[in-house]
Amino acid sequence: MTLQELGEFGLIERLMLSVTHLLPAGVEGIGDDCAVIPYFNDHSLLITTDTLVENVHFTLDTITPLDLGYKSLAVNLSDIAAMGGEPLYAFLSLSLPPETSLKWIDQYNQGFLQLAKENRTFLLGGDTTRAKELTITVTLVGQIANPYIKRRSQAKPGDFICCTGFLGDSGAGLHLLLHHEMNHPLIEAHVRPRLYLKEGQWLAQQTSVHAMMDISDGIASDLKHIMKASHCGAELNINQLPISADLKQMALKMNGLAEDFALHAGEDYCLLLTIDKEDYARLSQAYEAHFKTPLFLLGTMTEGQKLICFKDGKKLSLTKQGFDHFKILI
Amino acid sequence: MTLQELGEFGLIERLMLSVTHLLPAGVEGIGDDCAVIPYFNDHSLLITTDTLVENVHFTLDTITPLDLGYKSLAVNLSDIAAMGGEPLYAFLSLSLPPETSLKWIDQYNQGFLQLAKENRTFLLGGDTTRAKELTITVTLVGQIANPYIKRRSQAKPGDFICCTGFLGDSGAGLHLLLHHEMNHPLIEAHVRPRLYLKEGQWLAQQTSVHAMMDISDGIASDLKHIMKASHCGAELNINQLPISADLKQMALKMNGLAEDFALHAGEDYCLLLTIDKEDYARLSQAYEAHFKTPLFLLGTMTEGQKLICFKDGKKLSLTKQGFDHFKILI
Repeated sequence: MTLQELGEFGLIERLMLSVTHLLPAGVEGIGDDCAVIPYFNDHSLLITTDTLVENVHFTLDTITPLDLGYKSLAVNLSDIAAMGGEPLYAFLSLSLPPETSLKWIDQYNQGFLQLAKENRTFLLGGDTTRAKELTITVTLVGQIANPYIKRRSQAKPGDFICCTGFLGDSGAGLHLLLHHEMNHPLIEAHVRPRLYLKEGQWLAQQTSVHAMMDISDGIASDLKHIMKASHCGAELNINQLPISADLKQMALKMNGLAEDFALHAGEDYCLLLTIDKEDYARLSQAYEAHFKTPLFLLGTMTEGQKLICFKDGKKLSLTKQGFDHFKILI
Repeated sequence: MTLQELGEFGLIERLMLSVTHLLPAGVEGIGDDCAVIPYFNDHSLLITTDTLVENVHFTLDTITPLDLGYKSLAVNLSDIAAMGGEPLYAFLSLSLPPETSLKWIDQYNQGFLQLAKENRTFLLGGDTTRAKELTITVTLVGQIANPYIKRRSQAKPGDFICCTGFLGDSGAGLHLLLHHEMNHPLIEAHVRPRLYLKEGQWLAQQTSVHAMMDISDGIASDLKHIMKASHCGAELNINQLPISADLKQMALKMNGLAEDFALHAGEDYCLLLTIDKEDYARLSQAYEAHFKTPLFLLGTMTEGQKLICFKDGKKLSLTKQGFDHFKILI
């Protein structure tokens, strides 16, 4: 069996199985957006790491070095947001082709450091080496007060499923870029995903928010992570997926379904969360009043294990999978 | 200007210049073996990250997956040892060609996790993605009591320069592997470098040990890091370089100089340190009594900025550089 056959999530599960050590008290490892380690004053550190590889996650034709610098930090900041944390320190490992120009590197650094500064995140170290393909690994350290940590595993049957932003815009932006459309409002969502750090911190302080994660692989795939970790099923109402006017318009033009992008395309980096339904009305009003943007209601967590989708009142069978780096080529 | 012309250390300095934020109290960033961040009970966390790239740091012909798993963690453990710390948590990012076999991955994991277990280090997370070339980034978190942190910047003129192990064996092992010699005692030093964690922790508790780091790029290159950070010069006695019997024998056979490997080849991962000369006799005796292995004396830190080498009582001009990933091909 090769990696291609097993796929990315299979590999992560395989690694988890090999990590049989019993973790010390207060330490949480593989399986959520960040690892958790004890810190002082009833706080924990959150640690996450993400790798972006040229021609897998991006091509140099479709993203500027400035945007790539932004995005390579943003995808990690999103993991900190997903657990409700505040970022602190970043580590950057760059594997670069020797012919990379210094202008390119300076612009990459500018994009990275500008976003770091905006989020009071200090670059404390890293590594640089040559390589054939550009590969970027960022490790990010954040902190959170222990009572506020939000995990994938805390959803309960009956919880409402919500997300904080439009779905599918980033995937549609990538689709446009790969079809040589360089000027379209959707592209911004792909190259400079909006972050939800303040929103994550606010939501983390609400006891009625049970599970939380960020949407990186597409909601159809990511919701399954919450289901699996929480031992729940879910019903998703396709008609309620938050789809931007831009995506609707683009889908119309290409005779495609905007829902396909929204369900499967990934890289939206908004937050996916489950909320005690009794508190949903109060919480969504307070959220909207505070952030001037809605908390979109998508469905309900259920007993059982299945993900059932409804569209126009009918059950829909969901065949496609979210993005898996070993199985799908861009 | 391209990266190749600038070289790895130039790139790191360029990054340092862009990081103009003032770091919070107790936080230390780029410039030493690990970053330092405040932890509880007058301790700090040490964080380091290292990337190994196929065909730059290793080839799949010359290292088994078991040894590569060991080595990719070992090079990071060595950075923790270099500041006197104790390892705690590891994060592993693997970029793998899709045709990688699961057998290969399982053996890689075995080598990694076995060394982690021996050093009470927990694998808490990471990322997996596909790539054309195998690229491994490990981030390691350790801890240390604040009074014991050893830095590159604390050497003083007059200090004796010492190291904890033979120099050049790893480079000679690589040379043999690249010349298709697969069975030679020197190869072990390259594929499974010995670690000096206990030694580093012991040395860190000695106030007469001033500066410390690990030798990853070759002593000629690494000593310059201590010189620069400590604003000192250094005199190195080439006749005193600790050279193993195996390396001497191999150098004889190939009519080469063992000192060339010892000075420049890198990847020895023993500790390089400077010691108050008044305490050297006591400290080296105590070290040898405790670890049953000598602390090798190599030279003296000096006023000024120059690295001066002596061989057979004569000054030697040092032209070659240590290993720089952007400038030298293996």
